[in-house]
Order: sequence, then C-alpha cells, then structure tokens
Amino acid sequence: MITADPHIVHILQEVIEFLGTFAFAISGIRHAAARHFDWFGGYVCGFAVAIGGGTIRDVMLGVTPFWMTSPMYVLCTAVALIFVILFGRLLKRLDNAWFAFDTLGLALFNIAGIQKTLTMGHAFWVAIIMGCITGAAGGVIRDVLLNNIPVIFHKEIYAMACVAGGLVYWLLFYLGAPLPLTIVVSFLTVCIIRYLAVRYHISLPILSKDAGDMD
Amino acid sequence: MITADPHIVHILQEVIEFLGTFAFAISGIRHAAARHFDWFGGYVCGFAVAIGGGTIRDVMLGVTPFWMTSPMYVLCTAVALIFVILFGRLLKRLDNAWFAFDTLGLALFNIAGIQKTLTMGHAFWVAIIMGCITGAAGGVIRDVLLNNIPVIFHKEIYAMACVAGGLVYWLLFYLGAPLPLTIVVSFLTVCIIRYLAVRYHISLPILSKDAGDMD
Amino acid sequence: MITADPHIVHILQEVIEFLGTFAFAISGIRHAAARHFDWFGGYVCGFAVAIGGGTIRDVMLGVTPFWMTSPMYVLCTAVALIFVILFGRLLKRLDNAWFAFDTLGLALFNIAGIQKTLTMGHAFWVAIIMGCITGAAGGVIRDVLLNNIPVIFHKEIYAMACVAGGLVYWLLFYLGAPLPLTIVVSFLTVCIIRYLAVRYHISLPILSKDAGDMD
Repeated sequence: MITADPHIVHILQEVIEFLGTFAFAISGIRHAAARHFDWFGGYVCGFAVAIGGGTIRDVMLGVTPFWMTSPMYVLCTAVALIFVILFGRLLKRLDNAWFAFDTLGLALFNIAGIQKTLTMGHAFWVAIIMGCITGAAGGVIRDVLLNNIPVIFHKEIYAMACVAGGLVYWLLFYLGAPLPLTIVVSFLTVCIIRYLAVRYHISLPILSKDAGDMD
Repeated sequence: MITADPHIVHILQEVIEFLGTFAFAISGIRHAAARHFDWFGGYVCGFAVAIGGGTIRDVMLGVTPFWMTSPMYVLCTAVALIFVILFGRLLKRLDNAWFAFDTLGLALFNIAGIQKTLTMGHAFWVAIIMGCITGAAGGVIRDVLLNNIPVIFHKEIYAMACVAGGLVYWLLFYLGAPLPLTIVVSFLTVCIIRYLAVRYHISLPILSKDAGDMD
Repeated sequence: MITADPHIVHILQEVIEFLGTFAFAISGIRHAAARHFDWFGGYVCGFAVAIGGGTIRDVMLGVTPFWMTSPMYVLCTAVALIFVILFGRLLKRLDNAWFAFDTLGLALFNIAGIQKTLTMGHAFWVAIIMGCITGAAGGVIRDVLLNNIPVIFHKEIYAMACVAGGLVYWLLFYLGAPLPLTIVVSFLTVCIIRYLAVRYHISLPILSKDAGDMD
C-alpha cells in the first residue's frame, strides 16, 4: 500500500487536498444556502470552512497564511460555488461522497497541521492542537458566521478524531517508526474513528446541566 | 479633478479617512444601541467596525495592526460615541450623510488595503481579497458580536463593490495607467456600484434552499 | 504587605495565575454545560476563556501565543473539566470562590497584558487596550461560541475595571512610583472596582434605543 515513489505520493496528496478543500467548501456553501445567503455569502462561507482552520494555525505560528501563496483555494471554492448553483438539487443524493471527501480532507488537514507545527520547532502537544485546529476550526467559523451553535461542540465526534490521529502520530514517532508509516497510520486513524462514530452514532458524554451557569 | 499637488491629496485622504472611520464607528454604535448595549459595549462595537477589517488584514500580512500606531482611531470612535449619546434622536434624519460617509470610507479602506498588500509583495488576487476584507470585515465582526447574521451575506451589495473596485484597479495597473488615475477610477467604481445597488435595490441571487444542509 | 523577596513574589504570581486560569476555564465550561455541550465542547470553551484574550494580544503584538510555550494552560483546563464533570452539583455553592478567583485572574491578566505590551515598545494607550483585551476578550469569545450576546457589553462592569487599572498604572508610572507599588495599586484597583460594581449593582448607562439602527 505504501509506495516509495515520491512522485505518486505527491500527486495523491494533491488530489486528496483538492477533494478535501472542495468538500469543505461545499459544506460551507450548503449551510449558507439553508440560511438564504446570496452567492457572495455562500462563497465567503465556503472559503471560511476551506481555509479558516489553516489560517488560524498559520497566524498563531507567525507565518503567511497558506492560501495567500497559491490561488488553488480561491479557485476551488469558486468551482464549488458554481457546482452548488448548477446542481443544487442533486447534492443530497451525493451525501456519501461528501462524507468521504470531508473525512479525507479532515485527516489530511490534520496531518498537514501537525507536520507544519513540528517543522517550526514546537512541542508535540502544540502540534496536536494545531492539527485539530487545522481540521476542525473552519467548521466552527462557518457556524459562528451562520449564527448557529458550533455543531462539533455538542453533536459529533470530529475534532476528537484529529486528537486521536495526533496521539497515534506522536506514539509512532516516539517508537521510531518510519515517517511514511507514521503518516499513513495516523491518517487512517482519523478516517476510521470518524467513520465508526457516524456509523454507530458514537458521541462524547454531554456535560451535566447541573453545572450550568448562564449568568 | 485630479490634482497633482501631493499636499492637497494628502489632506483629502486624511479627511476621507476620518469621515469613513467616523461613519463606520457610528454604524457599530447604532447597531449596539438597538441591542441595548451599554456605553462600553457601544464603544467596542464601533471600534470593531472601524478597525476590524484592517486589523485582520494586518495580522494576515504579518505587520503591526495600523490602529496601534496612531491614537486617531481610538479618539475618533470616542467622538462617535459621545455624538451618539448626545444626538441619538437626530441620527435618523442624517441617514443620507451616514450613507455617503460610509461609502467614501468603504472605497478608501478598500484601496488602502489593496495598496498595502501590493507593497508587501503579494499577488494582485491576494490584494483584491485584502481590500475587500479591509472594507467589509468590520461589519461582519459587528454582526457576530451582536448575534446577528452578517448582513453583507444575504442582503446588500457591499463587499462586491470592493471586488469590482479591485478588478478595475488591476485592469488599469495592467494597462499601465498612471497611479493617481488608477486610484481615482477604482475609488469611484466602488462608490458608484454601491450607490446604484442601494438606489435601484440591486442584489445578488440567493442560493437555492434545495441545496441547503443544516446537518 | 509588599515583600521585596523576588522568590515569594514569583510564587505568588504563579499561584494567582493558576487560580485565575482555573476560574476562567471553569466559567467557560459551566456556560458550555448550560448549552448541553459535550466534554470536548466544554474543554474548548473553557480553554477559549482561559487563553483567548492573551492569544489575541500576542497575535496583534506579533509574538508566539503564550500558551504554546508551556503546557500549564492546557493541563489546567483539563483539570477544570474533570472538576466540573465530577463535582458539577457542588459548583453553585462555591460561587463566591469563583468570583474571587475570577477577579484575581482578571486583575493579573490585565497587568500582565499591560507590561508585555510596554516591553514591546508600544505606547501606553495601546498597553491599556491590550491589558483590557487580555482580561476580557476570552469571555467575549466564549459568548460568541455559545451564540450569546457578549455579557460584558450590556450588563457588567468588567472590562472598565481593567481600563481603570490601566489608567492608575499609567498615572503611577508617570509620577515615577516604584514598579512593585505601581503593580500592586493597579492590581487592587481592578479588584476593588469589580467587587464594588457587583456588590452595589453599579453598571454603565445603556445606549438610548432612539439611536438604534438594525438596517
């Protein structure tokens, strides 16, 4: 499964990144449609999901946000917007495809965030948090812009799949596993946990309302 | 119309910047008043509209936020707050003045954002996005703080006027037009599009609800 | 009262910082519990209150966010989450303790924000704003994530206590007072103003609705 050919690995990574960005943008645009946003609002929402997490990560790492160095993300979001405008009715039938792309994107963005943070010389626990932010913060920005309570805080195992993938990455790194193996196993960890959580309706416990405080 | 005297140009720019900052701050404070915010909440809301877009731009460009280098913006927001407290009832009669100042501010902030981004060596498409963020993101922050759905995502031509102004700037730059002409024409483009959109109730198409997804 | 022993001062500062971080995290988790967030959502909310203000400050100052350099804040929030899960019912009886810890944390974070900003060479009025952001912005992020209108904008004297503390710091600095005295007096100013405001229900005037504008 793990090819040593760096050219194929690079192409595979670019394909997953495009599909993931596309699925993230579609998610933002569809949520915007449910709120009667116009085309511009849909575009901003899609773009925020696609690049929001990585942008927060890059600002905290003190580097230029990744999307400012290649027009791929701006164009990919534009394609997603045109896609939703033209094929809006068909989208619901493709829910399995979006789920698959979204999960691949989540896993890839997570690993990419971990590696970028480690490259900058930060501790592993910082890298795991940054991987989680890269994968999951875009959806939180989307929910804030749409005036919804962020769905990942009360409903789904999403960010926790990133944390689990990050811990596996750390363990394999600590055990001295080769980098390609480390990447593939932690990538699959994110995908499998997210799949199982959705398939078997697994979620985290809810905080007791007894502890609640609304001032 | 286009004076070559750099002193007069500079004064004109400062006057427009003050009027624009003032109009942006007034907009934030009036929205805060509609939500029964106190004086402090009104000040923060007004300040967020006035400096929010430029601050996001500067953080992404990796430079010190512009308002930290001159007390003008902090003071201008304070004047706006006092103005609203003293003359609250009169404000509605001045709606045409606010609209004019707000439009001048939008156009100026847009051009300023484009030029600052180009000066830092970024591509033109990045500069157009940054110009749009400089002009329009403050209002989005205001709406998020007030728990409203951002108005520019579903109701008005506002950010698209910035995008159009940015494209005109790009075109004139590409054609080798002199800088003052480029600035004035793209400035007027933003003002005229915004004016026509409000005057004739022109808005972007709404996304079809068929494509909607609220999870 | 003011000891000259730097070792004891340092320990005292660390204890207050831990208690303040803990109280801030508890505040975020309890608000999350009132909204039926799960454990992950509670953790993120608690973390956002504890580190949100200082992170915005550090990003605007152009330095690495403080919590990325020590695992204390991540661990302290985890302890707070476990505490809420285990002792949720007891929390309401401890309201006076939370109020005391929260006020100590607010005062400490405010002073720390002022000093960090001055060290970076910024003007005093920038430092006062940064101190205010360090102390109060985390709670605003919490309210935005929970889809509430930020409580500090319409209900409580909270950020204004920071501004008052900052002005006292400025005055004493201007008068040439020794640094320890300056710190202690401005620290106590924040605590006392916050205590008096809550004790005697003192709040800022509300903006007149006549000035309101909701577009």
